[in-house]
Amino acid sequence: MSSYILSLHDRIRTLGTPALVGLDPRWDLLPDEVRCQAAAAGGSGVEIQARAFEAFCCRLIDVIADLVPAVKPQVAFFERLGPAGMVSVQNVIRYARNRQLMVIADAKRGDIGSTATAYADAWMAGADPNGAVFAANAVTVNAYMGVDTLQPFVDAAVQRQAGVYVLVRTSNPGAGDFQDLETHGQPLYATVADAVQQLNSEHWPNQAYGSIGAVVGATWPEQLRQLRRRMPSAPLLVPGFGSQGGTAADVVGAFAADGSGALINSSRDINFAWHRRQSSEQFGEARWEDAVLAATQEMISALKGAAVD
Amino acid sequence: MSSYILSLHDRIRTLGTPALVGLDPRWDLLPDEVRCQAAAAGGSGVEIQARAFEAFCCRLIDVIADLVPAVKPQVAFFERLGPAGMVSVQNVIRYARNRQLMVIADAKRGDIGSTATAYADAWMAGADPNGAVFAANAVTVNAYMGVDTLQPFVDAAVQRQAGVYVLVRTSNPGAGDFQDLETHGQPLYATVADAVQQLNSEHWPNQAYGSIGAVVGATWPEQLRQLRRRMPSAPLLVPGFGSQGGTAADVVGAFAADGSGALINSSRDINFAWHRRQSSEQFGEARWEDAVLAATQEMISALKGAAVD
Repeated sequence: MSSYILSLHDRIRTLGTPALVGLDPRWDLLPDEVRCQAAAAGGSGVEIQARAFEAFCCRLIDVIADLVPAVKPQVAFFERLGPAGMVSVQNVIRYARNRQLMVIADAKRGDIGSTATAYADAWMAGADPNGAVFAANAVTVNAYMGVDTLQPFVDAAVQRQAGVYVLVRTSNPGAGDFQDLETHGQPLYATVADAVQQLNSEHWPNQAYGSIGAVVGATWPEQLRQLRRRMPSAPLLVPGFGSQGGTAADVVGAFAADGSGALINSSRDINFAWHRRQSSEQFGEARWEDAVLAATQEMISALKGAAVD
Repeated sequence: MSSYILSLHDRIRTLGTPALVGLDPRWDLLPDEVRCQAAAAGGSGVEIQARAFEAFCCRLIDVIADLVPAVKPQVAFFERLGPAGMVSVQNVIRYARNRQLMVIADAKRGDIGSTATAYADAWMAGADPNGAVFAANAVTVNAYMGVDTLQPFVDAAVQRQAGVYVLVRTSNPGAGDFQDLETHGQPLYATVADAVQQLNSEHWPNQAYGSIGAVVGATWPEQLRQLRRRMPSAPLLVPGFGSQGGTAADVVGAFAADGSGALINSSRDINFAWHRRQSSEQFGEARWEDAVLAATQEMISALKGAAVD
């Protein structure tokens, strides 16, 4: 297996779960306490929000760091706050890595040639936390522009023991608009999947998994099962579990027979667990971290049955 | 026409050219003078580079502001420098707008639901320079995830008189890997183009142009001609002119009969004009701004024959 995947599998095995927690900070959903504390330190609106995002994510990381193998910060929410938000996401990534979490930056970048290289250099630190300004282990990318546009990310994965997750079949309702279009007798997403498998065979030949993963939504259990078989060497990142509707039964197909090969992501249901009715009654906002802990444990336990191990 | 396009066409008409200058700062290609001045002010490596990028881009803007209607900063090169780079791109965008240039942030973002909204909020200031933390008039986006993922960008375009350019047929050698795959008797890019046209018809009915544009590479003249006809209401952004090989003859097909409907982009040939042999002999590095001016004038003059006016 590639070194990125060795490290990831090691974490998954040690903790006994493929649960991935998305970090999706949203100002209107943060606990009042976090917002007020950030506001008390002053500054502009975006500075206050950025400070709150960082505090919230780091406290959330403290709750989950010993339970799950990895986190997935959603870059868009930080980017919306400008440079102050980018400082936050930089700090959150560092904080997570110091807590031994693997970090997948959900940035969905993609461009041509030297521009793609710049994105890979920005986000793919890989094994060495000083390897990039945003020190993630892996990044999500969009392949619409062509296989040549993936190459700089693949090169970075090889050189820095980093990972890449290519969007194949996404979790949103309109995912099929283009991804399902039939091309040469198979849907477009299958052609993208073949390119992902090919990159793994080429760069990590004769290995169980390469470093080029694929994003396949939990909301499409049948495609998930097909795509697991179609890309045997690709680690999967499966979003859409929880608030988007994916269940543990839906993600069974994401795993190989030995239970390896996939990370299952939940973001909102964990980040804002205390907003859920039952959780809100049990914990209330003041105990939001307890709600996060309970939601994470609940997810881990739901997934126990899904990943055969 | 939509207000974004009215403003853009007004600038194009006033200046008499559809030339768009990409801002692609790259440390190894910057003039020594700019690098040394940035280094003299001290700080970390990325801070020095970010300062140099900003100084270079602002000086370049001073040269071209009265000649071309718009600039297109390539976000990746700034992002690679982390928060310091994001401060630079923020300042460069503001500086360009203060010089009356329209700004298209080349960020190629794309995601689902509230995440896409966050990207639109980050980059699409539209008519009001205070409308977003990165104050661009328009942004480039990737539609692979589905038409529903474009909606937040469309909403922002409507609400803030901003523009969106959807990747349709890109300029890179491997563009055809997925974009050319035949789906229901037509290439994928044509299906994406139809979605773009549909969004314009829906939101700006009975108008010459809507605010949802398309990126179509100058390196594919035949597809450019087809796509101009296929998306009559979509403003085109045509990269690949100059260093990527596109010529004035190649981009003729990008324009409607009245010469409207497209911006033609050149980045490296203008940014680093003094690195080109002839220009290097004529100006040398010390006169890099004169080389930029000459290259811009040369492009404008080459395009005179292309856009029928």
